[in-house]
Amino acid sequence: MRQLSLSTTRREEFLDITGEVAALLKDLVRESGHGEGAVLVYSPHTTAGITINEGADPDVRRDMLAHLAQLVPMSGGDGADFRHAEGNSDAHIKTSLMGSSQLVPVSGGRLSLGTWQKIYFCEFDGPRRRSVLVQFLPAAGGPEQEPGEGG
Amino acid sequence: MRQLSLSTTRREEFLDITGEVAALLKDLVRESGHGEGAVLVYSPHTTAGITINEGADPDVRRDMLAHLAQLVPMSGGDGADFRHAEGNSDAHIKTSLMGSSQLVPVSGGRLSLGTWQKIYFCEFDGPRRRSVLVQFLPAAGGPEQEPGEGG
Amino acid sequence: MRQLSLSTTRREEFLDITGEVAALLKDLVRESGHGEGAVLVYSPHTTAGITINEGADPDVRRDMLAHLAQLVPMSGGDGADFRHAEGNSDAHIKTSLMGSSQLVPVSGGRLSLGTWQKIYFCEFDGPRRRSVLVQFLPAAGGPEQEPGEGG
Repeated sequence: MRQLSLSTTRREEFLDITGEVAALLKDLVRESGHGEGAVLVYSPHTTAGITINEGADPDVRRDMLAHLAQLVPMSGGDGADFRHAEGNSDAHIKTSLMGSSQLVPVSGGRLSLGTWQKIYFCEFDGPRRRSVLVQFLPAAGGPEQEPGEGG
Repeated sequence: MRQLSLSTTRREEFLDITGEVAALLKDLVRESGHGEGAVLVYSPHTTAGITINEGADPDVRRDMLAHLAQLVPMSGGDGADFRHAEGNSDAHIKTSLMGSSQLVPVSGGRLSLGTWQKIYFCEFDGPRRRSVLVQFLPAAGGPEQEPGEGG
Repeated sequence: MRQLSLSTTRREEFLDITGEVAALLKDLVRESGHGEGAVLVYSPHTTAGITINEGADPDVRRDMLAHLAQLVPMSGGDGADFRHAEGNSDAHIKTSLMGSSQLVPVSGGRLSLGTWQKIYFCEFDGPRRRSVLVQFLPAAGGPEQEPGEGG
């Protein structure tokens, strides 16, 4: 398992962590001796999640954050006031809506993301220092052996 | 890993892909020599996700799609206009709400779905040609051996 | 794989199942001979999901359930009446919004949850008898061997 450290700079923001995950995956794949499997990208926080979505146009991220804020206003909205005293119930709810983790297929030692997909750390109660756990789960049992490697 | 190809026929639709996933799982389980684990069903798209829900009454899928359209209107709704120029921000948001993948437990080489559960490909910006990645992650390390099989 | 049985006592409720999952994980880790990997916590139901969120203040759970009820009213809301005859379409939708499962990293044989994270069974159509499937997926291939254990 590896840990990624990051700093967010706003209350709400989607940070593209695809490059960092790919770099950590390289190490994990080498250590495991397997190139097939899946990689778990996990947020150990309760006001920040992980999602996978478009990376080409930054307006997609903006629209996602703006619409989540409309669905889950900080105040609770419509007279349904939140009771949690820290005033960040909206951040907890958005985290569960996006999910605490994503699992991405790995083939040939690399992320099998679609053409437009990026992995996002979803900050909903920043700015803060945050971390992400990255764990590689191999598809095959036992170390792989190259033909002619003996054994 | 295996890939499933499919064609959607409407802008929004939930396609039951349980049978196709079960068929691919059979191959993956045979190749791995393991019958215990979990299978990752992954959408490599940013406007289509995967969810697990009821398969008996088609009205459940209809109600899910209708309510998602109410939560995330194409226009953004309530004056919160979307900026993404392709006009499909709603599809991106719905994809993150449903999730890009599902992970289903496997036991005895078969999907451990509940009685009423089906795996759905969630199209939010069709009709299109789409694909789904299917990866089996075994629970045990090393190839299993039957008693008396030697080794 | 292990199964956890539980009883819910209300129509909607978040049950903290972290302790039960940790206990089952202990057995699964011992059996597998691996302490690194991830554990899948899976709801085989279509009106109950799994999420990870804050455990310290019970008001967070209350706010989450209250806001989900506002986002997905039992009636469908705003004239968008649900058609599913069982009258629990809201529960199906909330289940897909939270997700049918969570995957938690495991290190040293233990759940790598963040300080404030708890694993919740999300009941949306109780009270009922329910079950949860727990599957451990190891990170390394082949049984681990202690130094000096031979082999």
